[in-house]
Amino acid sequence: MTGKRIKIVENILNANDQIALKNKNRIEAAGAYSINLMASPGAGKTSFILSTINAILDENVQIGVIEGDTAPVTIDSDKISAAGMPAVQVNTGGQCHLDAVMIEYALDQLPLETLDLLIVENVGNLICPAAFKLGTHSNVLISSVPEGDDKPYKYPNIYRGLDVLIINKIDLLPYLEFNMDYFRKGVEMLNPDLQTFAVSCKTNEGIENWLAWLKMRISRK
Amino acid sequence: MTGKRIKIVENILNANDQIALKNKNRIEAAGAYSINLMASPGAGKTSFILSTINAILDENVQIGVIEGDTAPVTIDSDKISAAGMPAVQVNTGGQCHLDAVMIEYALDQLPLETLDLLIVENVGNLICPAAFKLGTHSNVLISSVPEGDDKPYKYPNIYRGLDVLIINKIDLLPYLEFNMDYFRKGVEMLNPDLQTFAVSCKTNEGIENWLAWLKMRISRK
Repeated sequence: MTGKRIKIVENILNANDQIALKNKNRIEAAGAYSINLMASPGAGKTSFILSTINAILDENVQIGVIEGDTAPVTIDSDKISAAGMPAVQVNTGGQCHLDAVMIEYALDQLPLETLDLLIVENVGNLICPAAFKLGTHSNVLISSVPEGDDKPYKYPNIYRGLDVLIINKIDLLPYLEFNMDYFRKGVEMLNPDLQTFAVSCKTNEGIENWLAWLKMRISRK
Repeated sequence: MTGKRIKIVENILNANDQIALKNKNRIEAAGAYSINLMASPGAGKTSFILSTINAILDENVQIGVIEGDTAPVTIDSDKISAAGMPAVQVNTGGQCHLDAVMIEYALDQLPLETLDLLIVENVGNLICPAAFKLGTHSNVLISSVPEGDDKPYKYPNIYRGLDVLIINKIDLLPYLEFNMDYFRKGVEMLNPDLQTFAVSCKTNEGIENWLAWLKMRISRK
């Protein structure tokens, strides 16, 4: 049974990668930079997107958001719309990750030509999203400190494929037993020289460093 | 492609359910009570098991633990062994959930006949584990307050199938914006009258209520 399942997943990945490539070409043709934002449930993906939007709202940067959800709730996409940016919700129907077909569909619903930045908020999950390319430029993971300092050791696959790591909720560090050296050592083993930003979306600490990285990648229209 | 994938998943579930039934019969024949413990990454599954072990260690209750991990790390199973209880680690090889076949294999490695309680620590994931029966008596979910109060609304499937909900890390409530009424209302919609215990594995607050529930289900050998 296991052999059969593995074979099928490989077929899906091949089809997925072809569509991911189409998505990437389409996003690049529109002149937008794009991010696949991944994290555990409740690590602060939507808060991080809102912090990013609010910080560059007055700089005339157009940000579109694709919200992946496993259920038909619009809690997150409503927050993005309220912040004045176009958002599309993709309901995966219980599936544990976004795939390239879902992004292809979502791109049709966005004013892609007007966007400078496209952020895809993946489903809250540290495992499955790592296996599916979407066609974005970079993979960004949010790891929040209440989750504990052993996450790179336990969920190595997602760390290996990252371009940027955000360590979120650092305002809670005084109340937790979180060994930052142990955490960073685990990350370093999997992904040496990974670009990492420690932030708090509550206090905005550290957000400016992330923004500096991001702004270098965005060309305004 | 979508239709094909759904059909395959159903076939796996059918095979899985047959083996889950075999597992359940086997655990019952051994006279052990069994729990499928699920949660997001870092919600405190292992800490909760350790709190449970420590609280009833002097009552001569034998607890076996099956540790599901996506990677070949023994961080969690080492902690259980150090607490003096038999633990088996199941490395899913990157797969996002435990299934009944993995439990069948793990049961062979445990002194099942001597156990009063078997706790299966599922892979850290709020989506996929909900779809795979293991053969345990009850489904227990740990939701930790730093994950936010909207989790029942966003991950409804896992809440629907629960027998017990543990709300963990309540020692952090003073530092978070967590609306307990909103959270509980979401749970109530999905699973009315769900048995719920609010606890802190750090301070041990609330653990005695969970233990009272658990002890009613364990018959000592």
